[in-house]
Amino acid sequence: MPPTLTILAIGDELTCGERVDTNSAWIAAKAAARGARIAEHRTAADDRPLIADAIRELAARSDVLVVTGGLGPTLDDLTRHALGDVLGEPLVEDAATMDALRVWYAGRGRAMPDANRIQAMRPPSARCLDNPNGTAPGLHAKVGRTEVFCLPGPPREMMPMFERFVLPALRDDSGEVVRVRTVPTFGLGESTVADLLGDLMDRTRNPMVGTTASGCIVTCRIRYAGPPDGADAALADTVERVKTALGPAVLVDHDEHDDGLVLVRTVGDLLRERRQTVATVESCTGGLVGEMITRLPGSSDIFAGGLLTYSNELKSRLAGVDESLIARHGAVSREVAAAMARGGLDRCQSHHALAITGVAGPGGGSESKPVGTVWIARASRDGTLDTRQFLFRGGRDSVRLWSATTALGMLRLHLVGAAMDLLGQVEAAS
Amino acid sequence: MPPTLTILAIGDELTCGERVDTNSAWIAAKAAARGARIAEHRTAADDRPLIADAIRELAARSDVLVVTGGLGPTLDDLTRHALGDVLGEPLVEDAATMDALRVWYAGRGRAMPDANRIQAMRPPSARCLDNPNGTAPGLHAKVGRTEVFCLPGPPREMMPMFERFVLPALRDDSGEVVRVRTVPTFGLGESTVADLLGDLMDRTRNPMVGTTASGCIVTCRIRYAGPPDGADAALADTVERVKTALGPAVLVDHDEHDDGLVLVRTVGDLLRERRQTVATVESCTGGLVGEMITRLPGSSDIFAGGLLTYSNELKSRLAGVDESLIARHGAVSREVAAAMARGGLDRCQSHHALAITGVAGPGGGSESKPVGTVWIARASRDGTLDTRQFLFRGGRDSVRLWSATTALGMLRLHLVGAAMDLLGQVEAAS
Repeated sequence: MPPTLTILAIGDELTCGERVDTNSAWIAAKAAARGARIAEHRTAADDRPLIADAIRELAARSDVLVVTGGLGPTLDDLTRHALGDVLGEPLVEDAATMDALRVWYAGRGRAMPDANRIQAMRPPSARCLDNPNGTAPGLHAKVGRTEVFCLPGPPREMMPMFERFVLPALRDDSGEVVRVRTVPTFGLGESTVADLLGDLMDRTRNPMVGTTASGCIVTCRIRYAGPPDGADAALADTVERVKTALGPAVLVDHDEHDDGLVLVRTVGDLLRERRQTVATVESCTGGLVGEMITRLPGSSDIFAGGLLTYSNELKSRLAGVDESLIARHGAVSREVAAAMARGGLDRCQSHHALAITGVAGPGGGSESKPVGTVWIARASRDGTLDTRQFLFRGGRDSVRLWSATTALGMLRLHLVGAAMDLLGQVEAAS
Repeated sequence: MPPTLTILAIGDELTCGERVDTNSAWIAAKAAARGARIAEHRTAADDRPLIADAIRELAARSDVLVVTGGLGPTLDDLTRHALGDVLGEPLVEDAATMDALRVWYAGRGRAMPDANRIQAMRPPSARCLDNPNGTAPGLHAKVGRTEVFCLPGPPREMMPMFERFVLPALRDDSGEVVRVRTVPTFGLGESTVADLLGDLMDRTRNPMVGTTASGCIVTCRIRYAGPPDGADAALADTVERVKTALGPAVLVDHDEHDDGLVLVRTVGDLLRERRQTVATVESCTGGLVGEMITRLPGSSDIFAGGLLTYSNELKSRLAGVDESLIARHGAVSREVAAAMARGGLDRCQSHHALAITGVAGPGGGSESKPVGTVWIARASRDGTLDTRQFLFRGGRDSVRLWSATTALGMLRLHLVGAAMDLLGQVEAAS
């Protein structure tokens, strides 16, 4: 049988709804991809007996329990005390962790605050788990036959610790394997993807195909469960069927990282293969396209730079857009988007330039150019130009995200030599 | 005593991490604002005995239980069956709901699918709750003395039903109230905040003070529970004590939105009061500062635009940085950061300019300028200039986020006329 996993998230800010718990879903998705069965998550307030009860109850129902949060240095961080209560063990100081804390603070030229000493305490039967990204070590203990892992709440600390310490504990002794491949797409809505996939999405099929939409990316998840021998061939066959069904919307065969950067990584790889660069000229997105491109390590190979031409004056001054174009057609127009892109090519000396000008809202809309109206232009040194108008929905953040992502999608279609037809679907998906 | 609330979210897509549960946080925030105490949320898979157990356990621990999801027409929608199991009652058809379902489908010119008949079934002691935005009615029942509300999962159906049916049930007959204020800060680590707050964080204090760190912002949460008469004075007194303890790190008295934009909103408000604008000149952050500023609606009042000078060539071409400065001091240096900021003032004609140049990693570090080394400059039209070097930790994303946030923090300290001493703490908090 695959192992069962439960998840417990700790914190008043979660139970009171001040923050949405994203850790539990991330942990569940990672564990499910390894074949674990997850029947229950819980969220508990910063209350020691309540946390102890939850650890006790969840440990009794699962092979592995992951607890996140409540390991900080303050008085409302109570996870380690609650774990001690469950184990019936008073906390002791972990000498190695205390040394590591002292070194951490010394490296920053500061004395360790007294409050942080608590982070070196553990129940005697527990061991500390190294946290390279923060001061709070994790804890591992056995409660009955259940492996309990307590990890810090900040995602950038929790995630690498989960992968290092918890994933190896999700063993399955049955000989069956679960393997998951993902096929990320851009340009189609989730229901269009479902229509095109048809019978491939049958819930009894193995490998089974499911879809998830996140931002502007619809990812097909292909899940095989069965003997290890058949896994590779079955997965490869289903991946091919999915790719055939979805055509140029498919970004890559498999996204190893699954970090939301698949589109920009795809564009980056295409540019790198061609030894080319892109520049951005952004108005309503205010730097989002540049920010997305530069999330990629090594992006200096492919990103020249850009211009944030938020005001009309800077569209002219920085990107050289003729003032009369703005006066005649308005700042949100095909003509101005094209001139911005051409100005980007010229000022940044890049191979390609992407320009975005639009009405992100909530103010600034008009009858002829309602909120969500966005013009995007892609210009290249070879003299080619695409310009296209979109009407995106869903408020300022959504209009900006769809604008930035669609600009990258236009560059990708140009680089792979595909027709721009796909973009006709983008608005409907927003 | 204020009523206690628990929340149960149902669905395999939640337990498996394919979707993040945002309903529970929304419900909790609404209920907390009415003074309810929320100690626990749970998420359960589409499994009838598991859902029944969760309803039983949570009902035993709270005055009101809200269940979301699992009311649809398909075979994996099991909430109503589980509620019937808890009550020990076989389901019966609700005649009025069945009529309403027939009318709903007739209005759309379709026959009602057989599967949807289940949505008119209820335990005999439960009543159906009208859902104006979908086919699934809710259910209300008493389990022991606990009021249980089952609502559909889609937020646009759930939210109006919660407000209509559940909020009125959150009565508090004791006359006690709960009120929460938040004090967001920037520049101090969470443990330093705790040290400075001292006894204010005692868990038996009322109002009680807790802290949460999110990104670079540490928020103090001040929670009063007691008679309504004393609430305002007690909260105001504690807010003052917190502000006195934390000094210039305090951004605002109270952040109504709590959307992660409090620092940029604070800076935006300060600029708007002064009718001033800022420009950005970004290297390693690639547009992040501009993107953060333009998340604010109406940011065209305060954001002129900016330059993304990712390559050295563009630092010269776009921002006018003297090539010899780069040759002599390197691109990541006080001199280049200062020249970038001055170039931004000049090219964007703004009142203030923020410039960032650094080594975000993972590549590009050296012994003298390791990964995380960042120079930030703030220049203003009045001729003043701050430049400062930081060493941020935690990988590319973290270095970029801290750089962008710290630049905004530097502008804020300048605008409020505070000393820059606080920035000495920023690195250690990263």
